[in-house]
Amino acid sequence: MKITVVGLGLIGGSFAKGLRASALVEELLGVDTSPTHAERALELGLVDRIVTLEQAMAESDTVLLAVPVDGIVALLPKLLDAIRDHQTVIDLGSTKVSICDAVRNHPRRSRYVAAHPMAGTEFSGPDAARDGLFHGKTVLLCELERSAPDARACAIAIFEAIGMRIEPMGAALHDRHAAFVSHLSHVVAYALSLAVQSEERAGYAVPRLAGGGFTSTVRLAKSNPEMWVPIFEQNRRELLSAVEALNQQIQRFKVCLEKEDYTCLRDLIHEANRIKELL
Amino acid sequence: MKITVVGLGLIGGSFAKGLRASALVEELLGVDTSPTHAERALELGLVDRIVTLEQAMAESDTVLLAVPVDGIVALLPKLLDAIRDHQTVIDLGSTKVSICDAVRNHPRRSRYVAAHPMAGTEFSGPDAARDGLFHGKTVLLCELERSAPDARACAIAIFEAIGMRIEPMGAALHDRHAAFVSHLSHVVAYALSLAVQSEERAGYAVPRLAGGGFTSTVRLAKSNPEMWVPIFEQNRRELLSAVEALNQQIQRFKVCLEKEDYTCLRDLIHEANRIKELL
Repeated sequence: MKITVVGLGLIGGSFAKGLRASALVEELLGVDTSPTHAERALELGLVDRIVTLEQAMAESDTVLLAVPVDGIVALLPKLLDAIRDHQTVIDLGSTKVSICDAVRNHPRRSRYVAAHPMAGTEFSGPDAARDGLFHGKTVLLCELERSAPDARACAIAIFEAIGMRIEPMGAALHDRHAAFVSHLSHVVAYALSLAVQSEERAGYAVPRLAGGGFTSTVRLAKSNPEMWVPIFEQNRRELLSAVEALNQQIQRFKVCLEKEDYTCLRDLIHEANRIKELL
Repeated sequence: MKITVVGLGLIGGSFAKGLRASALVEELLGVDTSPTHAERALELGLVDRIVTLEQAMAESDTVLLAVPVDGIVALLPKLLDAIRDHQTVIDLGSTKVSICDAVRNHPRRSRYVAAHPMAGTEFSGPDAARDGLFHGKTVLLCELERSAPDARACAIAIFEAIGMRIEPMGAALHDRHAAFVSHLSHVVAYALSLAVQSEERAGYAVPRLAGGGFTSTVRLAKSNPEMWVPIFEQNRRELLSAVEALNQQIQRFKVCLEKEDYTCLRDLIHEANRIKELL
């Protein structure tokens, strides 16, 4: 299979690395709007050749979209305009409703598969690409009933080739799920970073003296706005629900502390501990 | 040096492992109120012998207190009652004001050194003890001016022996710093866990399908209430400030989302990204 990866950053680059190690791929092409990233991706051997989007559509069997979700919404209808019967386009974006809606009535909708591989790191660019990033992780596939059987099969073959577990999910449910188990974690980490920075400026907190707990909790605060602002924008409503749910839980802790009710605090922590069994 | 570790869990056990590898220690004794933990610590080779607190005070040069902070407040004055001139007691608790206050006017105060090694994990018990947990991390030493020069030197030798960087800090400043860079991270993780669990019960979120980002952000929510309720209780006021500071930052995100002000959102994320330089 000839595969093009559009967007040679953390996600696209890690996908290319995973595919490279599989028997599925005949040639890997790469597209990136940044000449620096494109060159670096070649140097790192992530792809065999850098091509334009037009060349990619002329030459490849499958196109993987690994750009920020606003870029996916803009590109996807154009790619479907040009797509031929044997070709498949798969997006790897962190939102699904806005992206699926952008091509809902497109005459070639069936050539597209909506996917969200649930893995990532806080880093970006071709140098952030990591071997095995997706191995053993879950990819959520949405609105599979709108994809042609062969397009579906192609997507499944690709995700299986890099060792992912496949799970179908409705687009709306996906966006709510993603708001809680991914997007909210970013808001939490950003807010924690900002709270600690305000104390750092006042001289009361020294982040460099923190232990592993803070480092782990704040890790996602390193994630860049180019990727995350469009995700927050597209999943705004669900994310606002998630933020509200978080506020309610923080409030429960605050009330226990204010009332000095340590029995209630112990119960809350016990309840929170249950996450062990759910992960 | 003959050292006793009181509390053979994550912190005490990891300390014992670190000390075991150093040339400083002649014999390592262990005290634990749980016979199961004591036995397991022996099996794991964390300590050479299990003794009572009385035996520990009779035999050791140095006693390390690695029990929950309410236990430290209860034990420390009693240990100082029995302490002899060449002996030193060091606590490893996550709060410092309450602990230092508990012995502020004790006639043997100078035999005590207040310490907080900034490292840990979300696990507990002797099996959670980890080689190298403290290596390269910072230990904050408080109210050093109240410790006798030889007690200070003893503490410094011990922390250096396990590869820690030593940083003196006032007890009040410590508690504020710890509220922001450690205790708040726990509240955040607990609240995130509870928010996701409420969605999980409603069928809208599936934690097991989460990627590494959620796992990392929620990690500390596995930490047990036996250790954390007393910390929150002793550092209640500073923690409430920290929670309030966090709420304000979350509110900034909420306002951006509600107003659909994505320029403001981008600025917030850029500001949060600065944590990269501070860690």
